[in-house]
Amino acid sequence: MLNFSYRNPVKVVFGTGSIAGLGKEVPAGSRVLITYGGGSIRTTGTLDEVKAALSGQTVFEFGGIEPNPSFETMMRALDVVRAENIDFILAVGGGSVMDGSKFLAAAACHDGDAMDILRTRGRCVKQALPLGVVVTLAATGSETNNGGVLTHLATHAKTAFSSPLMFPRFAIMDPAKTLTLPVRQVSNGVVDAFVHVVEQYLTYPVNGKIQDRFAEGILLTLIEEGPKALSQPDDVDVRANLMWAASQALNGLIGAGVPQDWATHMLGHELTAAHGLDHAQTLAIVLPAMLEERREAKRDKLLQYAERVWGIGPTGDGADDDSRISAAIMKTRDFFERMQVPTRLSAYGIGAEAIDHLVSQLEAHGMVKLGERQAVTPDISRRVYEACLQ
Amino acid sequence: MLNFSYRNPVKVVFGTGSIAGLGKEVPAGSRVLITYGGGSIRTTGTLDEVKAALSGQTVFEFGGIEPNPSFETMMRALDVVRAENIDFILAVGGGSVMDGSKFLAAAACHDGDAMDILRTRGRCVKQALPLGVVVTLAATGSETNNGGVLTHLATHAKTAFSSPLMFPRFAIMDPAKTLTLPVRQVSNGVVDAFVHVVEQYLTYPVNGKIQDRFAEGILLTLIEEGPKALSQPDDVDVRANLMWAASQALNGLIGAGVPQDWATHMLGHELTAAHGLDHAQTLAIVLPAMLEERREAKRDKLLQYAERVWGIGPTGDGADDDSRISAAIMKTRDFFERMQVPTRLSAYGIGAEAIDHLVSQLEAHGMVKLGERQAVTPDISRRVYEACLQ
Repeated sequence: MLNFSYRNPVKVVFGTGSIAGLGKEVPAGSRVLITYGGGSIRTTGTLDEVKAALSGQTVFEFGGIEPNPSFETMMRALDVVRAENIDFILAVGGGSVMDGSKFLAAAACHDGDAMDILRTRGRCVKQALPLGVVVTLAATGSETNNGGVLTHLATHAKTAFSSPLMFPRFAIMDPAKTLTLPVRQVSNGVVDAFVHVVEQYLTYPVNGKIQDRFAEGILLTLIEEGPKALSQPDDVDVRANLMWAASQALNGLIGAGVPQDWATHMLGHELTAAHGLDHAQTLAIVLPAMLEERREAKRDKLLQYAERVWGIGPTGDGADDDSRISAAIMKTRDFFERMQVPTRLSAYGIGAEAIDHLVSQLEAHGMVKLGERQAVTPDISRRVYEACLQ
Repeated sequence: MLNFSYRNPVKVVFGTGSIAGLGKEVPAGSRVLITYGGGSIRTTGTLDEVKAALSGQTVFEFGGIEPNPSFETMMRALDVVRAENIDFILAVGGGSVMDGSKFLAAAACHDGDAMDILRTRGRCVKQALPLGVVVTLAATGSETNNGGVLTHLATHAKTAFSSPLMFPRFAIMDPAKTLTLPVRQVSNGVVDAFVHVVEQYLTYPVNGKIQDRFAEGILLTLIEEGPKALSQPDDVDVRANLMWAASQALNGLIGAGVPQDWATHMLGHELTAAHGLDHAQTLAIVLPAMLEERREAKRDKLLQYAERVWGIGPTGDGADDDSRISAAIMKTRDFFERMQVPTRLSAYGIGAEAIDHLVSQLEAHGMVKLGERQAVTPDISRRVYEACLQ
């Protein structure tokens, strides 16, 4: 096991009806800015429920945070924070709203250009407004971590940032709130959480047994419950397991003390930036190709993954580990397809002519030594993109 | 899954050599009381290492905290805290030192009789001194939770207490520090962590899939690594896995959103109080008998445990679930024996004549409706004790 430091102070309040307890978590007398996305929380009644729970606070609203939240949108939210002397930010939504609101909380306390926060990937943050979140989508795990990703529309750059000051104070997680989501968001969430785990698990062995078992446990849960969310869309217990799985996938725990990859995410970010694909769609496309490309470097963990996650154990004669690895990668792809997220660029109308630009953007963003051993060069990234085509 | 609230703010600094970073975690200029146990940290050099890392702080010492730490001893430590105006407590040791120091941190800020803290099981705690811990023993998980158990020597009562204010600020976890432990403490630690998991896992199903998978992952790790700690006593990586497993076993995570039992612990506490057995010894004795007694109430989870933890799956003809449960309980007992912790009262020279007193003490301490369904009455506890004899 590698040495590590781990801390996660987020208070989780989990369960159906948990929004009712929101008022206790936000200091009385606060000036609260509720941030949200496209407005579905209005039609579902969640916004009213949130406001009803905040009777001791003064409430303002900022809606319209887009999927892949933009720097530009959050700068408009910052105007509201300043104009209304906001002292508490309450993000109500999924990963985009939460990520954008983390940036906002830091920007509100930042002297100088808020772009510094992206430029330094969060390292310049010395202070942030307190932030709470009400989760309406199980996917990114943003509710229990201190990082986010923002898109700068002017340059098409997606930048990840983090700071210990960006942990939410609390995360209200009501799985019933995810029952009204469109299928596409449910599917994307399962794929997103799955790939988050894989990025921290499928590297090389360091004998981190708890981390491996926990990672495998999350993957097994996603494999069991993900398809049920599609076939039994009213089952709140399925949603509860998916919501807790997604949170555990990226709260830092399974990644503490083990190597991490994240090359799939970096290649995926360029696909979103250039072609507007959903984040999870890009991961479903890139991951199988990335695993094929790096099957030798990841050999030991791929065999463990095959056995423990997909039940593809040794045959007894010890032969044909390569077939087991191929089968595990195939099962991974099939799972994404079963979740209705296509895994090839052709399904999204993207052809070989797109690849030069994607690779040059990786280079422009400094993504030239990716993966757990910094071995994924632009040439390798190109091969992965090519393998994503058909 | 049940609704839950979960928060764990402890900062973990994990790995060989991590004590060197201690000075950064304790505020400069603090008046630090280092609390410890029997003095092995003097002979191993750990105390010197800790002091060397605290060069910017004024350091005092209080040693002699016993296994099953006593109220009486901690009251003497409280005298030192008051006499020296201590403003930071640093526990260096295992669960006993950490538990006692949690009480001490609260008692230092308590107006009135410190016994209130035990009487109210911690609920009266409104303030506590900051506490940090340096873990030298993987067992209780006390380093990453907010509870403890103290023995009142005058009445022979063991009382559990907890408070959100008793979380350590940080836990320095250096697995190399556990290499010098006597075999008995290593063995006890593995059994202790194992039973902590079982108390939160082997109840009745509520479809908490992540919790179950994580619990099973910890059990599998303890089963794999525990015996290695005896056969390969110099392997620091084995100790690292055991240390992280023990911490995850009782940091609240696997118990969030699921029923909990703890009857085995309550029966065990009386054995320690009356006969001085090590805590883990009492658990190794009581658990197999308790599982036998409650095999119908725990049927579904025992079958899951048999399959996922011990590889005793259905036979295909669907018959003989009872045999699978019996085999799983037998494997559990065998594991404890393999860890060199005897599982029958006779091995400790305790006979049937002890049982009346044990049951009456349970009653005296209000332990009359134990377990996840409050179904373990004194009559049932008596039967369990009787089954522990041979």
